[in-house]
Amino acid sequence: MIKAEIRIVMGSESDWAVMKEASALLKEMNIPHESVVYSAHRTPEELFSYMEEAEQNGTRIYIAAAGMAAHLPGVMASKTILPILGVPMASGALQGVDALLSIVQMPPGIPVGTLGIGASGAKNAALLAVSILALENATYSEKLREFRKKQKEKVLSARLT
Amino acid sequence: MIKAEIRIVMGSESDWAVMKEASALLKEMNIPHESVVYSAHRTPEELFSYMEEAEQNGTRIYIAAAGMAAHLPGVMASKTILPILGVPMASGALQGVDALLSIVQMPPGIPVGTLGIGASGAKNAALLAVSILALENATYSEKLREFRKKQKEKVLSARLT
Amino acid sequence: MIKAEIRIVMGSESDWAVMKEASALLKEMNIPHESVVYSAHRTPEELFSYMEEAEQNGTRIYIAAAGMAAHLPGVMASKTILPILGVPMASGALQGVDALLSIVQMPPGIPVGTLGIGASGAKNAALLAVSILALENATYSEKLREFRKKQKEKVLSARLT
Amino acid sequence: MIKAEIRIVMGSESDWAVMKEASALLKEMNIPHESVVYSAHRTPEELFSYMEEAEQNGTRIYIAAAGMAAHLPGVMASKTILPILGVPMASGALQGVDALLSIVQMPPGIPVGTLGIGASGAKNAALLAVSILALENATYSEKLREFRKKQKEKVLSARLT
Amino acid sequence: MIKAEIRIVMGSESDWAVMKEASALLKEMNIPHESVVYSAHRTPEELFSYMEEAEQNGTRIYIAAAGMAAHLPGVMASKTILPILGVPMASGALQGVDALLSIVQMPPGIPVGTLGIGASGAKNAALLAVSILALENATYSEKLREFRKKQKEKVLSARLT
Amino acid sequence: MIKAEIRIVMGSESDWAVMKEASALLKEMNIPHESVVYSAHRTPEELFSYMEEAEQNGTRIYIAAAGMAAHLPGVMASKTILPILGVPMASGALQGVDALLSIVQMPPGIPVGTLGIGASGAKNAALLAVSILALENATYSEKLREFRKKQKEKVLSARLT
Amino acid sequence: MIKAEIRIVMGSESDWAVMKEASALLKEMNIPHESVVYSAHRTPEELFSYMEEAEQNGTRIYIAAAGMAAHLPGVMASKTILPILGVPMASGALQGVDALLSIVQMPPGIPVGTLGIGASGAKNAALLAVSILALENATYSEKLREFRKKQKEKVLSARLT
Amino acid sequence: MIKAEIRIVMGSESDWAVMKEASALLKEMNIPHESVVYSAHRTPEELFSYMEEAEQNGTRIYIAAAGMAAHLPGVMASKTILPILGVPMASGALQGVDALLSIVQMPPGIPVGTLGIGASGAKNAALLAVSILALENATYSEKLREFRKKQKEKVLSARLT
Repeated sequence: MIKAEIRIVMGSESDWAVMKEASALLKEMNIPHESVVYSAHRTPEELFSYMEEAEQNGTRIYIAAAGMAAHLPGVMASKTILPILGVPMASGALQGVDALLSIVQMPPGIPVGTLGIGASGAKNAALLAVSILALENATYSEKLREFRKKQKEKVLSARLT
Repeated sequence: MIKAEIRIVMGSESDWAVMKEASALLKEMNIPHESVVYSAHRTPEELFSYMEEAEQNGTRIYIAAAGMAAHLPGVMASKTILPILGVPMASGALQGVDALLSIVQMPPGIPVGTLGIGASGAKNAALLAVSILALENATYSEKLREFRKKQKEKVLSARLT
Repeated sequence: MIKAEIRIVMGSESDWAVMKEASALLKEMNIPHESVVYSAHRTPEELFSYMEEAEQNGTRIYIAAAGMAAHLPGVMASKTILPILGVPMASGALQGVDALLSIVQMPPGIPVGTLGIGASGAKNAALLAVSILALENATYSEKLREFRKKQKEKVLSARLT
Repeated sequence: MIKAEIRIVMGSESDWAVMKEASALLKEMNIPHESVVYSAHRTPEELFSYMEEAEQNGTRIYIAAAGMAAHLPGVMASKTILPILGVPMASGALQGVDALLSIVQMPPGIPVGTLGIGASGAKNAALLAVSILALENATYSEKLREFRKKQKEKVLSARLT
Repeated sequence: MIKAEIRIVMGSESDWAVMKEASALLKEMNIPHESVVYSAHRTPEELFSYMEEAEQNGTRIYIAAAGMAAHLPGVMASKTILPILGVPMASGALQGVDALLSIVQMPPGIPVGTLGIGASGAKNAALLAVSILALENATYSEKLREFRKKQKEKVLSARLT
Repeated sequence: MIKAEIRIVMGSESDWAVMKEASALLKEMNIPHESVVYSAHRTPEELFSYMEEAEQNGTRIYIAAAGMAAHLPGVMASKTILPILGVPMASGALQGVDALLSIVQMPPGIPVGTLGIGASGAKNAALLAVSILALENATYSEKLREFRKKQKEKVLSARLT
Repeated sequence: MIKAEIRIVMGSESDWAVMKEASALLKEMNIPHESVVYSAHRTPEELFSYMEEAEQNGTRIYIAAAGMAAHLPGVMASKTILPILGVPMASGALQGVDALLSIVQMPPGIPVGTLGIGASGAKNAALLAVSILALENATYSEKLREFRKKQKEKVLSARLT
Repeated sequence: MIKAEIRIVMGSESDWAVMKEASALLKEMNIPHESVVYSAHRTPEELFSYMEEAEQNGTRIYIAAAGMAAHLPGVMASKTILPILGVPMASGALQGVDALLSIVQMPPGIPVGTLGIGASGAKNAALLAVSILALENATYSEKLREFRKKQKEKVLSARLT
């Protein structure tokens, strides 16, 4: 297992189409991370083993993505005191409303920091994870400031034609 | 641990105010059952131990009740092949819509048979559990028919004043 | 009429595109079942005749699928004490929210065990039906365990590229 | 059974608290009608017998009120070609959204003319029923015009203090 | 202006793609009707003139279809005591939920009998209109019974392949 | 009729409990206005007469409040080119969601500037109306700036105990 | 910076596909306006500088469009006492419901006049802006009356084929 | 200004009734923090000054709570690269759905880690903040493990009577 501060766990292989945007953003910032598929319902034991090993290998934050009755982030949160960031996937008939509520409405005591539905949420989970790591890492702070500067420039260079 | 074919598990002590209607209905029908509190997030190990022991003591059906991001029924379903009946509680700001979606929208492969929100769902979970047991138990079939007869009579004796 | 423990009833021929996933899963598990179309509103008498005959031919569980104001599962539940599993179809403008509420929010006394909207719900209805039959059938238990093993392997073999 | 052109059927005795507003309005207009309780799920046979007898006794329109998975209006519609007007009750956690969708989203072929949730819908069902009867009854037309005149006066005499 | 008992009014030319299903059904039953476009907001005077003339030419029922903040049925209802049947169109981002609520939630005193969203509602509006006319017209009753028989046969001839 | 630049029209006397907050705010700012009750459905002619007279008496902006299928703002908008500000009332089972959609989702061509549900929306309608008048009235600008200053001070003086 | 009474600000370049309908309508009416992209979150300082300069160059009304957690209109409203008209964009999984609520549900004290979701709202924002300017500009009043006349003619010339 | 790693900012004094649960939990864990009221709309400059000073005084995480069109967390996120945790308040007619969507559906680039609506979310925001600080603070880790142990014991000691 690689050393990585951020682990992206998703409930289904099909979530990768969206979550690779989180991974791409971290890659672009040169931040070691790993993306894996584990299901809270189909592979709970393997998920928990992965988490144990991951925490021995430097993990500090989990990004957890799931659709429908998206239990993955909450189930992971029940097993660790590391911060969990949840990303609702827009799979199924309800377009992610089910996943959003299943992730954000956690009972008191077991928090999941929830981001928006789909690709926006995936990117923001990566950025929030970096902002947490940046609390102790000036290089990461610099990367975040650089990222914000670039996106500001992108807005300012918009052309309406 | 008592021998009981039906186990009612709820995620919080406060759910009992609603779920005791399921228990009362089973009691009225003289069907051995047990009601307990375990949280999918706060006491996962104890929940799983309880389930193991319960299955060695004759459990055939679980009724699982939870509110908000109601993971309990789905988490239990991931650990057993016994039928799980889920009851969404109307706790919190969203009046049980969150719990309903968190229970019913399970991903393919791990089913939860979901009943309505709140007290109606609690009663119906009890009745559906009995109807499952009644497949092999003529006494229970008789009790169900008796119950239906009584509720028919109750409707027919309604007085509008 | 064939002997079959599970009967899949759907309200419209167009539901078959989704419900055949339930049938395929049962076929794969080698479990005798029958799929038919009856409408609660357009063919109530024929529906009730079918149910009577079906129950004389070994039916133990119904899976009932319908869209929009999906009354089929509830109407069937009013005519039998056998367990009914309801599957909301995502037809129409509301993407199955109407069907979900029309199925799951049954009044106290007449339960329908509800699964998720669309194909996920269809598959889960089949699996829940098998788990009920498995209470008295060790072969079915074995099949369920086998199914879970396979889906676990499928998750574990996911490749993110 | 009395002779009456309008029959108000409700699924539960508790709906009377709301539906008596429909009855009161008809009474005020001196229009023969009858209010009864029949459940689509608990007393389907009695419901159908009632409808048969009612139609032999001059019934021309049904007003059907139900809450939650409100199947009553649709089930009645499947048994008659008389016009059915449905009124969703706001019972349960979802405040009548479930009942509204369960009544209005009928599949093509079996119509239910749906009114608003709760007391407003109850009154409007009575008025719509009268407007239908008024097509052949000049006295009823007159009563409707009188009603409209009165409610106009009520608005015009509003005092803001 | 032709003599016709049923007038289909829609708020926008684009609604015709859906509402022609109502017209086709009436045509199939050989029932004189007229379909026109008037907007409650853009052509209120012309709408009211049309209604006046229509009522002098035998109109007995209006079917009114509109999307988004669908005021057309309610505005027409404020001008007549004839029965109004409203059909919500699924135009715009909200898929007809806005239109459904804008039509069905009329304040007490001015009723609109509301049908389902889109094509199902369009067909059902036609059928409900015919069922109202059938109260005084045995030929129409016969047509309705024939229609029901045909749709029953269609369900019974469904083939699942 | 008084001379007044702002007219507050509400669909029902009961809306006054909320809309008097708009009136109070205007009064506090010493801005001439009038509050009246007219229903789009029950008193359309009187509403239109009022609007005609009002526009001859200096009206420049309408604030229109209504609940449920809230047609009042849109119906007024169809009769004038003056700006209409709509305020959804939270009456009925749906807590103002119906009114919000009935007001804001106007078809293209007939705009209504919509404010939030209930008392917040009432106050904001008053403030937006003043901001429009302030375009040509420096005294009103001053009052708005004063208002903002005061509300800033209120926030800054908050005490958490 | 050009002199212009109306400024259309949008949060993202991609909103232009919708908002150009507002611009086109203003162009058609020959009303000076400017369309720009500024993000409330990514370029707040530049947004505020733009607003300051704009107000020195004759701006009287802002049209602000944004999607998802659409803060742009509210953030602008916090910086000016000029009227702000907000247009929710239907971007993302929730089809603009999120943007609608984020714009319309402003707290008391800081109003945003909200139009419908997407292109209808864009056009209506332009028209409402013109109706505000028309309070002091007879040419604009004339243009609005002309516009209404044309859209009336368009409705009256609808052909159903 | 005190030295504190966590700052709780809320948009209105009335939010304190809920947010004091977050503060109480932090107090119980003996973690320095400060609770203040600043409005994104009414006091933006003061908010930004506060944030600047706070970041010079050791702030590492913000908890931001707001109701309705809850812009506070997003507006704060636009001004800092520190992690922001957002808590939707259930104020107003929509019971916090508006606030939830206004906080969680942030556009890509500016993340807010969102917790559940109301008191549950308030407590979870405090816990998530501590879990972030605990990445570099073994005492805090210990406190979190202690907290989890206590809440486990509370569940296990539930009594159903």
